[in-house]
Amino acid sequence: MLEQHHSSAIQHRIDQKTKPLGALGQLESVAHQLALIQSQGKAEAVQEIVLNKPTMLVFAGDHGIADEGVSIAPSAVTQQMVLNFLHGGAAVNCFCRVNDIELKVIDCGILLPVETDSTAFISQRIGPRTNNFAQMAAMTQEQVSAGIELGKKVANDCIDTGCNLLMFGEMGIGNTSSAAAILSALTGHPVEECVGLGTGITSQQYAKKCELVKAGVARCQGATAYDVLAEVGGYEIVQTVGAFLAAGERNIPVLVDGFIISIAAYVATLIQPECREQMIFAHRSEESGHKLLLQALAAEPLLDLGLRLGEGTGAALAVPLVKAAVEFYNRMASFESAGVTV
Amino acid sequence: MLEQHHSSAIQHRIDQKTKPLGALGQLESVAHQLALIQSQGKAEAVQEIVLNKPTMLVFAGDHGIADEGVSIAPSAVTQQMVLNFLHGGAAVNCFCRVNDIELKVIDCGILLPVETDSTAFISQRIGPRTNNFAQMAAMTQEQVSAGIELGKKVANDCIDTGCNLLMFGEMGIGNTSSAAAILSALTGHPVEECVGLGTGITSQQYAKKCELVKAGVARCQGATAYDVLAEVGGYEIVQTVGAFLAAGERNIPVLVDGFIISIAAYVATLIQPECREQMIFAHRSEESGHKLLLQALAAEPLLDLGLRLGEGTGAALAVPLVKAAVEFYNRMASFESAGVTV
Repeated sequence: MLEQHHSSAIQHRIDQKTKPLGALGQLESVAHQLALIQSQGKAEAVQEIVLNKPTMLVFAGDHGIADEGVSIAPSAVTQQMVLNFLHGGAAVNCFCRVNDIELKVIDCGILLPVETDSTAFISQRIGPRTNNFAQMAAMTQEQVSAGIELGKKVANDCIDTGCNLLMFGEMGIGNTSSAAAILSALTGHPVEECVGLGTGITSQQYAKKCELVKAGVARCQGATAYDVLAEVGGYEIVQTVGAFLAAGERNIPVLVDGFIISIAAYVATLIQPECREQMIFAHRSEESGHKLLLQALAAEPLLDLGLRLGEGTGAALAVPLVKAAVEFYNRMASFESAGVTV
Repeated sequence: MLEQHHSSAIQHRIDQKTKPLGALGQLESVAHQLALIQSQGKAEAVQEIVLNKPTMLVFAGDHGIADEGVSIAPSAVTQQMVLNFLHGGAAVNCFCRVNDIELKVIDCGILLPVETDSTAFISQRIGPRTNNFAQMAAMTQEQVSAGIELGKKVANDCIDTGCNLLMFGEMGIGNTSSAAAILSALTGHPVEECVGLGTGITSQQYAKKCELVKAGVARCQGATAYDVLAEVGGYEIVQTVGAFLAAGERNIPVLVDGFIISIAAYVATLIQPECREQMIFAHRSEESGHKLLLQALAAEPLLDLGLRLGEGTGAALAVPLVKAAVEFYNRMASFESAGVTV
């Protein structure tokens, strides 16, 4: 748990800025949260929030369920998109480039491995792809444990090099099915409310997707979060859960992306509730299950741009808002310093 | 009117990017609009959108109605905040700094002039402050015409130095009363729906504010947009109208801020409907009249962060989203170039 005793000093500093009380809306909450995080263990609340090396970790993995034809693309596209990330051509690359975000791509287990000497690439494969969860458990308990540790490791490595703002993105054909199944299994929301149209499937594919997800969810009665990950999870989701847990343990804020990443965030809070305190929610995805997840996480995201792409795009787009919050906390004048007599 | 014949080529370029159709939501609309603007008069649709010298013009003016006590602060605060802008201490300075936006402050007629040798300062005063519009016309027709020309001039001067993305901000104690009166007079919406709580007044002040606004609106029956500006406008609002008209004439996009700036945008569209085509709406203000204005302008803003500060803060915060839209349009891979086989 974050120590709260600097909270009133932080709020006082925000309230003395030359603006009406609360007039910067959600940016005030972001500044408060970051200042509280960075004031832990200090004698006084920080006067300056420091952002260092904002980094996006894109976790990629393939899903056996993709063979059922519930996505707009086959599993081979996961590899093609990983290569696109490494060549700088994807949407998340564009948004990281304009916002000075370092990007790394982690192969957590994609169907077709890539050959690359890119320094942005990290291979920590748990397997070639998960089993089709409509028929059997997606992975073993051992793979879940291994994946969580690998996710922790990659996040910890970033933090060790000085990064103090993390973002997670994902790529994996079929992973909205997995995320919907986890959501339904852990919250009890009906499958139909958790399943969305992914990146653009037909209503027939939607009906089939619901049936497949139900088959997986049916095996999750009374299951723990770990069990649910094994039954219907994905390699990239499991590693992302680990990354969230590491960020929480190390007290490093994470800008949380859309549906897939938010399901990993939610699972992490079930394993370790305190890791919620380091999460800043970047955006509201168009994917229908995301609003249920945001409710479950009591989250009010910064952006709502109608995005439904994943990759970490929403988180990357929110970085300038975090920088703006930091700048006003650090450098905006107070009524006293500016001689404003309200 | 913008020529539309490059529109399908622009949409095709966007649709060939490595993403599901429409998956970048509002950023796709922004990219399309900017590409269309920059493709005017060209043989082909631009392959690259160029952003140059994004500039924020903060128009400041004082209002006679402020003597009625309907704001949380007296008119003297307008000058204090202008000095705060010139010293770099206000919220809009912080957001311009982090987003590489040039900022200029225009004295359109504030109660207490400032003495400064700042190159960011432009004095083009129409008067010391407007008359109390609850009692008489805020200004003369000649002042309206002069203000519109001055606003055009400052925007044109920016454009002449190479700026091709404009933002307008404002400062003026009492200007939400003026904006609410203009809104009610021009749209017929009841005063109670147009008047908001400003930067934080009491319910008694709110009731009084409504009465004062009604007194001004009562003189606007059947009035033209110019007449309404004279009866209940403000010097900073009038100059902002002129700036919008110049941006439209020169085909330069404007990121539109909150309530006060949006009322100027609306008036500009009544004078010259085509200038709507260069407007990109940055954010939804908490000020209650803003949602009515956004409806009247058929606008879907990019941000909704609970801001209620003015100054141009919402527009400054939206600049990184515009840069992200430009980057994906210019540099994101196509399915063909990336070898993605969806």
